[in-house]
Amino acid sequence: MAKEKKLVEAITSMDVDFAQWYTDVVKKAELIDYSSVKGCMVIKPAGYAIWENIQKELDKRFKATGVENVYMPMFIPESLLQKEKDHVEGFAPEVAWVTHGGLNELQERMCVRPTSETLFCDFYAKDIQSYRDLPKVYNQWCSVVRWEKETRPFLRSREFLWQEGHTAHETAEQAEERTIQMLNLYADFCEEVLAIPVIKGRKTDKEKFAGAEATYTIEALMHDGKALQSGTSHNFGDGFAKAFGIQFTDKQNKLQYVHQTSWGLSTRLIGGIIMVHGDDSGLVLPPRIAPTQVMIIPIAQHKEGVLDKAYELKSQLEENFRVKVDASDKGPGFKFAEQEMRGIPVRIELGPKDIEANQGVIVRRDTREKIVVSLDELAEKLEEVLNTIQVDMLERARAHRDSHTVSVTTYDEFKDAIANKPGFVKAMWCGDEACEVKIKEETTATSRCMPFKQEQISGHCVCCGKEAKTMVYWGKAY
Amino acid sequence: MAKEKKLVEAITSMDVDFAQWYTDVVKKAELIDYSSVKGCMVIKPAGYAIWENIQKELDKRFKATGVENVYMPMFIPESLLQKEKDHVEGFAPEVAWVTHGGLNELQERMCVRPTSETLFCDFYAKDIQSYRDLPKVYNQWCSVVRWEKETRPFLRSREFLWQEGHTAHETAEQAEERTIQMLNLYADFCEEVLAIPVIKGRKTDKEKFAGAEATYTIEALMHDGKALQSGTSHNFGDGFAKAFGIQFTDKQNKLQYVHQTSWGLSTRLIGGIIMVHGDDSGLVLPPRIAPTQVMIIPIAQHKEGVLDKAYELKSQLEENFRVKVDASDKGPGFKFAEQEMRGIPVRIELGPKDIEANQGVIVRRDTREKIVVSLDELAEKLEEVLNTIQVDMLERARAHRDSHTVSVTTYDEFKDAIANKPGFVKAMWCGDEACEVKIKEETTATSRCMPFKQEQISGHCVCCGKEAKTMVYWGKAY
Repeated sequence: MAKEKKLVEAITSMDVDFAQWYTDVVKKAELIDYSSVKGCMVIKPAGYAIWENIQKELDKRFKATGVENVYMPMFIPESLLQKEKDHVEGFAPEVAWVTHGGLNELQERMCVRPTSETLFCDFYAKDIQSYRDLPKVYNQWCSVVRWEKETRPFLRSREFLWQEGHTAHETAEQAEERTIQMLNLYADFCEEVLAIPVIKGRKTDKEKFAGAEATYTIEALMHDGKALQSGTSHNFGDGFAKAFGIQFTDKQNKLQYVHQTSWGLSTRLIGGIIMVHGDDSGLVLPPRIAPTQVMIIPIAQHKEGVLDKAYELKSQLEENFRVKVDASDKGPGFKFAEQEMRGIPVRIELGPKDIEANQGVIVRRDTREKIVVSLDELAEKLEEVLNTIQVDMLERARAHRDSHTVSVTTYDEFKDAIANKPGFVKAMWCGDEACEVKIKEETTATSRCMPFKQEQISGHCVCCGKEAKTMVYWGKAY
Repeated sequence: MAKEKKLVEAITSMDVDFAQWYTDVVKKAELIDYSSVKGCMVIKPAGYAIWENIQKELDKRFKATGVENVYMPMFIPESLLQKEKDHVEGFAPEVAWVTHGGLNELQERMCVRPTSETLFCDFYAKDIQSYRDLPKVYNQWCSVVRWEKETRPFLRSREFLWQEGHTAHETAEQAEERTIQMLNLYADFCEEVLAIPVIKGRKTDKEKFAGAEATYTIEALMHDGKALQSGTSHNFGDGFAKAFGIQFTDKQNKLQYVHQTSWGLSTRLIGGIIMVHGDDSGLVLPPRIAPTQVMIIPIAQHKEGVLDKAYELKSQLEENFRVKVDASDKGPGFKFAEQEMRGIPVRIELGPKDIEANQGVIVRRDTREKIVVSLDELAEKLEEVLNTIQVDMLERARAHRDSHTVSVTTYDEFKDAIANKPGFVKAMWCGDEACEVKIKEETTATSRCMPFKQEQISGHCVCCGKEAKTMVYWGKAY
């Protein structure tokens, strides 16, 4: 019992200190450990298994749209990084530089990729000659490095895992279509698999990617009311193509520049899963992404037949579910607490009396609801319960987001909302970067996106009062 | 027709210049391209898809033995790399050093991992306390960097993709058991999936991994008679544990050092697939690893009904096979040459007369045998043909290896064999490193392994004539 209390007590309540709660969950659910390499993390089995499921599901969706996977070098020679002016300005201050290979100093230093636009462009410039070579719809799964000063597990670290798609097209229209297609794919994935509702929209020029013509984003709201940029998709137009000389002969035999896109999603999203769904007992994983969906916990497992029955159920269920038996020598209370901390969507409690009555008790992680079920109907009922959890988790996250989103028309209302009502603030904007900068300086809120679904909240910019051009989602962000 | 000839003519015959043939295949089959980053490669879709299939199959086999995937940082601080004496001596001369992060010089430089023993040890030292924490059976899929001077696609490059398993156990016996288990897993994978027969054995002390107590290897013979080390598994004993202080309290509450292993297999093996199975028409992929197993090639595809029938067959077959239709506007001869170059195990030729007769022509890539088959029995026949190809490829590779393996008892025979008979040379060895060094200097052959299946070829060392301790496979190697 002492041990059980220890496990539960160790978590700070999210209402007391959300940041500490987050760190506690990350550690206690054994997702991550700190490493001796400053700013870098060790992703432990429970954390990596979530990433593997994200990869599996996203990769399937990518390939259904014609994406092919490739692998580019992890190093970028300095001269290559410098080819696109905005891009190098955006990334050069935060890259790690390799200066020596073996015992020798390099003639030209190289950075470890912070992102691979320059490498893909360099490759495309050689590989693309004709319209027959287009489109190129390539993606790579890899790690990238950005020399951040402040780091937090999953959310911001010097090295992180991601995928980065890089495409080249004949026309501007095709590039824009692919940019939006991938943004929609990300949004559908977040909602359908991670049960995270997102706002789709376009970034302001101030917030867009270094070198992009337009950046689109999906923005999610965390439990503490802060926003998380959860995936981005960029349309580069022909800017990179001109900097790198990526040209093709079109059907009329004329030389043209390609139009390009890139899009990425990273392990940061695991931080999003934690902060959208978690509670004071730990992690809560949506069934579709949970590495283990069902934990069978035998009660009085020393009694004859209990463990046998538990394993019998496991082998019945494992064709359709990711299921485990906790047969360790810990007490049931400790096992419950551990299953809850790890966010396993349901447990099945199974004791001698249950077995006698040919029943088990399904306990939902998200609501703690207990459902007594005949063992003959277990598989059927489990499927129903897991589907319900998935749907309910999305609905709860949506309801939380909607109840933490306010519309404001005056700057006073805006400041009050940012200071006192954690969440999204919807407000009109004139389109002038000066207002965006002023808002950030005075409130710490940033423009999250100009949503595709526009609303006419008022006719005037919330900051300067001039004519408004667009409605913007604002908020504090990770 | 000009184009078709161009594709085929572009390959050097393997008998004329094997190295050039290899480079031609790698390029023409579109597996790899050179990059602007010296010594690093771009792995193109056709190459990466092979790696994805290797990953999928290996990962499944790993997990069936209890392996869990994790991710460690890509950087190793210099002081960490130096903790194990032999290890740092082995790797320090060939690592890439990061000296600056962003605009600042690092207080301590870090290398990009050439392998991750030191990172896993550093982690295990913190993470392992009790026998309850053991065994740890972790693996990671990642890229590593070794600053090679001479590079060749897949076989030797400054960055390559691999998996590295790192385990910690209570006892020396358990570590040895895991080391051998993983070697056997690699060997089975090579034979069953890649159709590459391998010799299993132990490396001599001279050839073992830097820091290992024992290194086990699987050695394959390429078409040109050179050996390829195709996977290694190391038993570290408690050497790293002592250097890093990885201790646990055992069941008697006594503090003990763990016993460790590591094992790895890399994209180098794709080079092995090419060099074991390829021919003068290009790549030949074993069906179980081929990203595309079946290419349907319509003949006279402009004629009514031909393309429709091709796509109809594709949709019938794609439940059980990885199948594509080549509906491009190239001529059939060009399509055949392309399918052959890319090593797709079978093509189905399908023309108007075939359709009329309700038949298709299956053509094997490996033997070019043509099999006319009723479309009603196509799926059944395809499965049979693909299985036969898989079996035949392994058998041919085994026959080639066996006919290129000689046993010798005198040093003159040895030198003659190495100089004039490309392949493995089996010879007895006294166990003295001096003989091994002399043999290498005088013949360029290295000891490949001391095979598990020993034979008593003679009683005397082939080099010095003293009493022999063990039979060794020798050969020139990649």
